[in-house]
Amino acid sequence: MSLSVGILGATGYTGAELLRILYLHPQARIVYCSSRQYNGKALADVLTFFRGSLDIPLEEFDEETVRNRCDIVFSCLPHGASMEFVAGIAPFVKVVDLSADFRLRDVSVYRAWYQEHSCPELLGKAVYGLCEIYRDLIRHAGLVANPGCYPTSVLLPLVPLLREGLIDKDGIVVDSKSGVSGAGRGLSLRSHICEVGESFSAYKVGRSHRHIPEIEQELAMAAGAPVTIEFTPHLVPMSRGMLSTIYVGTTADEAELKGCLERFYLGSPFVSVVDEPPSTKDVRGTNRCLIFVAKHPSRPRATIVSVIDNLTKGASGQAVQCMNLMFGLEETLGLDSLPLYP
Amino acid sequence: MSLSVGILGATGYTGAELLRILYLHPQARIVYCSSRQYNGKALADVLTFFRGSLDIPLEEFDEETVRNRCDIVFSCLPHGASMEFVAGIAPFVKVVDLSADFRLRDVSVYRAWYQEHSCPELLGKAVYGLCEIYRDLIRHAGLVANPGCYPTSVLLPLVPLLREGLIDKDGIVVDSKSGVSGAGRGLSLRSHICEVGESFSAYKVGRSHRHIPEIEQELAMAAGAPVTIEFTPHLVPMSRGMLSTIYVGTTADEAELKGCLERFYLGSPFVSVVDEPPSTKDVRGTNRCLIFVAKHPSRPRATIVSVIDNLTKGASGQAVQCMNLMFGLEETLGLDSLPLYP
Amino acid sequence: MSLSVGILGATGYTGAELLRILYLHPQARIVYCSSRQYNGKALADVLTFFRGSLDIPLEEFDEETVRNRCDIVFSCLPHGASMEFVAGIAPFVKVVDLSADFRLRDVSVYRAWYQEHSCPELLGKAVYGLCEIYRDLIRHAGLVANPGCYPTSVLLPLVPLLREGLIDKDGIVVDSKSGVSGAGRGLSLRSHICEVGESFSAYKVGRSHRHIPEIEQELAMAAGAPVTIEFTPHLVPMSRGMLSTIYVGTTADEAELKGCLERFYLGSPFVSVVDEPPSTKDVRGTNRCLIFVAKHPSRPRATIVSVIDNLTKGASGQAVQCMNLMFGLEETLGLDSLPLYP
Amino acid sequence: MSLSVGILGATGYTGAELLRILYLHPQARIVYCSSRQYNGKALADVLTFFRGSLDIPLEEFDEETVRNRCDIVFSCLPHGASMEFVAGIAPFVKVVDLSADFRLRDVSVYRAWYQEHSCPELLGKAVYGLCEIYRDLIRHAGLVANPGCYPTSVLLPLVPLLREGLIDKDGIVVDSKSGVSGAGRGLSLRSHICEVGESFSAYKVGRSHRHIPEIEQELAMAAGAPVTIEFTPHLVPMSRGMLSTIYVGTTADEAELKGCLERFYLGSPFVSVVDEPPSTKDVRGTNRCLIFVAKHPSRPRATIVSVIDNLTKGASGQAVQCMNLMFGLEETLGLDSLPLYP
Repeated sequence: MSLSVGILGATGYTGAELLRILYLHPQARIVYCSSRQYNGKALADVLTFFRGSLDIPLEEFDEETVRNRCDIVFSCLPHGASMEFVAGIAPFVKVVDLSADFRLRDVSVYRAWYQEHSCPELLGKAVYGLCEIYRDLIRHAGLVANPGCYPTSVLLPLVPLLREGLIDKDGIVVDSKSGVSGAGRGLSLRSHICEVGESFSAYKVGRSHRHIPEIEQELAMAAGAPVTIEFTPHLVPMSRGMLSTIYVGTTADEAELKGCLERFYLGSPFVSVVDEPPSTKDVRGTNRCLIFVAKHPSRPRATIVSVIDNLTKGASGQAVQCMNLMFGLEETLGLDSLPLYP
Repeated sequence: MSLSVGILGATGYTGAELLRILYLHPQARIVYCSSRQYNGKALADVLTFFRGSLDIPLEEFDEETVRNRCDIVFSCLPHGASMEFVAGIAPFVKVVDLSADFRLRDVSVYRAWYQEHSCPELLGKAVYGLCEIYRDLIRHAGLVANPGCYPTSVLLPLVPLLREGLIDKDGIVVDSKSGVSGAGRGLSLRSHICEVGESFSAYKVGRSHRHIPEIEQELAMAAGAPVTIEFTPHLVPMSRGMLSTIYVGTTADEAELKGCLERFYLGSPFVSVVDEPPSTKDVRGTNRCLIFVAKHPSRPRATIVSVIDNLTKGASGQAVQCMNLMFGLEETLGLDSLPLYP
Repeated sequence: MSLSVGILGATGYTGAELLRILYLHPQARIVYCSSRQYNGKALADVLTFFRGSLDIPLEEFDEETVRNRCDIVFSCLPHGASMEFVAGIAPFVKVVDLSADFRLRDVSVYRAWYQEHSCPELLGKAVYGLCEIYRDLIRHAGLVANPGCYPTSVLLPLVPLLREGLIDKDGIVVDSKSGVSGAGRGLSLRSHICEVGESFSAYKVGRSHRHIPEIEQELAMAAGAPVTIEFTPHLVPMSRGMLSTIYVGTTADEAELKGCLERFYLGSPFVSVVDEPPSTKDVRGTNRCLIFVAKHPSRPRATIVSVIDNLTKGASGQAVQCMNLMFGLEETLGLDSLPLYP
Repeated sequence: MSLSVGILGATGYTGAELLRILYLHPQARIVYCSSRQYNGKALADVLTFFRGSLDIPLEEFDEETVRNRCDIVFSCLPHGASMEFVAGIAPFVKVVDLSADFRLRDVSVYRAWYQEHSCPELLGKAVYGLCEIYRDLIRHAGLVANPGCYPTSVLLPLVPLLREGLIDKDGIVVDSKSGVSGAGRGLSLRSHICEVGESFSAYKVGRSHRHIPEIEQELAMAAGAPVTIEFTPHLVPMSRGMLSTIYVGTTADEAELKGCLERFYLGSPFVSVVDEPPSTKDVRGTNRCLIFVAKHPSRPRATIVSVIDNLTKGASGQAVQCMNLMFGLEETLGLDSLPLYP
């Protein structure tokens, strides 16, 4: 089998990461790339490391072309724009949407955090693409809503524990830290090396980050009841990497918590429970997630630390993992890279 | 007035920061520097930016010399070593000890977290050098225990709120992030640029960091009852800077919380309440602390973010602030620098 | 004395560095700041670390106001724009222009590298503000053309050696490396932390950088004959700092070369000859220049390394040094800071 | 075919990079790893990203074991130590030595720059492992001396031009910049993030770096006459990457210089001539070398810029490329990775 793959918005960071993975994927062939900003140029003129290896133009989006040429399309367009394009192709090609447009099951929640939804009828058909949690649904999905990076880093450790009732659904505090690539390739003082280099900052403090409803939706699914979290994102002076430190109430001991996670992820090669607090460098450029658990010695509380690469497991790597599942391929195909160390 | 100042352990990062500040301090004269590692060398051969400006030798520690030559001594020695030296000079010269040796009021707590204390009789005489909280005591102190960096970043925002009963003493979660200089100039894979650069990590997860008893001691003083916190320190790939994100229970609203802090710090020029989440770069190289407060919109919880420079307000700048108070000088003397931007 | 100081273009990096230095300068009072981009805002809303300390508006440029209010004006405007504004105020107030508009003595050279010059009559009145070389002229100047950062790092080591005929005027190779702040606060992929972080690059390879005519003009003045150099600028993944590695022909030995520089800079406290190859961190945030010289053991060639902070001695620090000279103040006033270490 | 591969000194940075490449190499099986420092531990306990994937012990070096178990051995030991071990196994197994011990053809040059050579008889059998230059010799070699990182970045652009007589053998200036990983995983203030972060420095200025004789030896081979260069290495505040800026005399024009390189590297997929000055990020984590050429507009001089990843094409990637050649495999096997971007 060789899948014909299209990428909408190929020149941003999630697009570039998809290209990096798919170019070496043994069953994928990149046949279509669109870009609004660089439409008409050659891909290799924008992402110059493809010079001499990937000779493909950046085309304007065209529904007809996409339908005829692609087996699967990844949309790396911004939310709002993405659903417009996806609506036109979803009935005909398989789609993994990396925007937020199909992640929220409740259209009123989408409206409250983003805008009016232009194709609510598709919401019910979309599967949330967190592979380790929704593996079987993804296998049969036509439209996958690829999870956000923060949600991925939070849900992988918490969903199994909530499902088994080992942690409280109340009192969850999530303190997350992300490399700057999470903010994309667009220009802003917040990505200027002289402004954010050698500096660490919090942003959107106090329940204003749009990943909150997505996290709470999935935690609620796992807990079987509404969940409200405290969540603060931070910016780390580096390009890639995400670490979430999560504080939860629990009467279970450390061994029970770790045992639950180990059992849950037994058949999931990308997720591991580790014995030392991890670094983001341990997973840089990989599709891995490492989870560390420590029980408070005197209180019914535990601290959980998870790390992912925000562009790989937090975005494009997970999207390829979804593709593998959607086409019956080995889940890890094309995703077996080791971290770039040092 | 011109104070004759001595520094024990002058060539580590807190020693170097003291030298940087005191060299330009209008009322201080550096007359004595000791170093165990570089004993016998010229200071300017170790900290080369002093070449041509500060011509002083690195001497071996000698009690007699210190007593005769210095009005005040800063000890930057490691804990354990520091109390040995301080015991011999404290009765004769004023001392600001930057180690942990005199921070814990209860000798059994010191023993549990560090080791046997060699001069417990001095513990009762030491004043905790958090200037904005203990200003009057410091003015009359002979021995000041300079606070740790993490405690400074946590206590400045929390002590006023606990004293006024505006936040709960239970359920406090402290998630702190520090630049690597906090780990000192000593060599370790944990400070190798290829290991920690472009990476973010948690360490001592789960109540094992030695700053915890110091934080809890002072929070208990403010609350009038024991306080137990959840605390996780993290390492940021940068040299200087510290940010603490603190989650607390409260029924007060944002204006009350901010108002309390603003009133408390009215006469304290180094501490400000700000309207945007701060960056560590806002305070780099300064003695400032910025505090941001955000109330959770639906729960009785608030998120507080504070930033300091771990080497300045978190160590040497605060030590000089203590010196200013101990000698009746203007509190801000020699500490009015602006952040190095960009 | 207290000088009333104005800054045109106060919110870029050279403007911010001027403000940082002048705010603590004992004889300067900042009375006027203009900004095209942030006109109407308070300065402290753009450069937030001035909150609570420098309460001044960002005004639109107005000749009348500047003439009435200021003793001296620093122009941090881009070339082209700068000469327009300077022409209107130069006859009435002292001006230090940090743009390139008055650095080239020959108007046809300016035209060839930049554009048509709008006030060539002022060119002859401008003094090139390299203090250690043109100290006496600067003392009596009304209009100073502040040198570029690359030229400063190249001219300080080479001018004395060329004047004494110790090095050849032919065969000079200059390989320079700059922190990203040299490119300014404007937004570009070339300052995006994900693009330039963890990366090193050359740019404008092959005689296209606009600092070349400025360097060659001053080298020719020193040599008494035309000089043509090879020059390559590079971008270092850091904010501040500049290092130039210069390869020259010479029959002199190391001692003669160093001796010449040491004699020349005897009364110049900011310039030092050092015995170990320097780092940019040695001068970060200071007005210093360090020079290292090594003779080739078998060929009549020598390698010279110089370091400066591109924003301080390479721009705003030098501009303040000029101001001190222009008003008969101590040359080092307000410029005695130590590097921020570590 | 499946090659059984051993690595001596597996836990340093070149060892780790070999493991990263070989682990995914379709024809290699890692069967033996030695480490003096971590002898007895599991590899995955030192390089933790191998947990769960590469379960192999770190053994003490044993000649007998190596001979029996390995088809090829990579030595990542330091010079001096390496030749001792290699002497015992070279007659029996193929060896790629990443140290400097077999790079210099003249034993007296080795003695002058390093120490007495313990097995000079092997020197004549060693092939210099610069694949694009010595491809055919490497195919039949039993012992390959893997080139140094600086030499690789200099020789790839210069050897073809010297061979064709397009550039002068005199007057070559090489200004090289390296990421800190080039200095290895050992601990030193020169790799402490607080010392070298946010700083740029020159080191070993003035003909003292040990890569000089290696570069001059190979340039002389290409020129057919002795060559003496000026060479200065620099340290960039990043982990990986190397850029060399090379200044040469030439009467050829830009097109001739580029044409010569393009012809020479026609069958060499890792080396490309590019039209824009390259960044080290363009090749990070890859075995590529990019070369840019610019002619001086008025002088018979040209500037050449080359970039490699010092740990890949500059060390372990090139070593694997040698292995591929030595065993008749496709030269690019296991080396087709794209740069980690961003």
